Amino acid sequence: MELLRERILQDGRCFEGGILKVDSFINHQMDPVLMKSIGVEFVRRFAGTNVNKIMTIEASGIAPAIMTGYLLNLPVVFAKKKKPSTMENMLHTQIHSFTKDRTYDVVISSDFLQPTDNVLFVDDFLAYGNAAVGVLDLIKQSGANLVGMGFIIEKAFQNGRKLIEDRGVRVESLAIIEDLSNCTIKIR
Amino acid sequence: MELLRERILQDGRCFEGGILKVDSFINHQMDPVLMKSIGVEFVRRFAGTNVNKIMTIEASGIAPAIMTGYLLNLPVVFAKKKKPSTMENMLHTQIHSFTKDRTYDVVISSDFLQPTDNVLFVDDFLAYGNAAVGVLDLIKQSGANLVGMGFIIEKAFQNGRKLIEDRGVRVESLAIIEDLSNCTIKIR
Repeated sequence: MELLRERILQDGRCFEGGILKVDSFINHQMDPVLMKSIGVEFVRRFAGTNVNKIMTIEASGIAPAIMTGYLLNLPVVFAKKKKPSTMENMLHTQIHSFTKDRTYDVVISSDFLQPTDNVLFVDDFLAYGNAAVGVLDLIKQSGANLVGMGFIIEKAFQNGRKLIEDRGVRVESLAIIEDLSNCTIKIR
Repeated sequence: MELLRERILQDGRCFEGGILKVDSFINHQMDPVLMKSIGVEFVRRFAGTNVNKIMTIEASGIAPAIMTGYLLNLPVVFAKKKKPSTMENMLHTQIHSFTKDRTYDVVISSDFLQPTDNVLFVDDFLAYGNAAVGVLDLIKQSGANLVGMGFIIEKAFQNGRKLIEDRGVRVESLAIIEDLSNCTIKIR
């Protein structure tokens, strides 16, 4: 996706420790027109599937997910990173974040993730794959079918893709970062 | 907004203590087509303003905010409910949630909320107004100008509107809940 690639090279910023900051257009401030183009690209890549529900995880996944759901006229459900007291039929898993060095609870109501659902999961980043594995656990608990996982940006050098593909899941990333060494962004 | 009103009466659920659950179409599972219509209505209501940035707060505000930003071709920034270690130029406030009975940190980078910005704040609920007052604090710290606040649903009996209007802020709510007594939804 050339538009995204150019934007990352123009506005993305690289920090020590493999950190790529895209907070001016993806995960703090967001460019809605770019998000819509990202949605179009997810629609294109998963066009051959029987997806009937979009799933994501708060907060940065919501913008690309809602655009994808809007284009396909499908409901979008987001997993929450804390346990709301009022959630009914809660499915629960834990996710460890290497970036933040902490483990957090992630929940979703099985009211909105059902055995009849064919789910496309959408998120902003694929790094070590821990969040994705937690999502796979929630989907497995729900009995829903997963048609694939789509990420805006994949950090290939953190190997999350292998963790997911080894479980038989199709992965599509719109921009694949090969390397961030010496604070230079190398995109495949 | 008739479409929203009908949807709340059809799919909203009322619980003891003034709780209205809209988690099947607004704040857990989301209807993206409804969210786009909500965006259109915010655009219409604030058409006469010089808004150049949409602001919201994670997580349930992101969907209506990104749709509004998309329709107006404006950037959208969301305040975060925890302090990320990598945020630069952080503005900070605290918000007390009556519903959850806890106080949480809310932050935003002043990189994306500047004195030259004319901000439209968009969120899912206006209840007691505590979140909105916290947002006013962040906007004041940033030096940005606030053109107004738009909410999908206002719970009129919890009086949040007075708190905001007393500070001279224009408030627009797309559905105003008069009462939830006896678990009956009464919309103005």
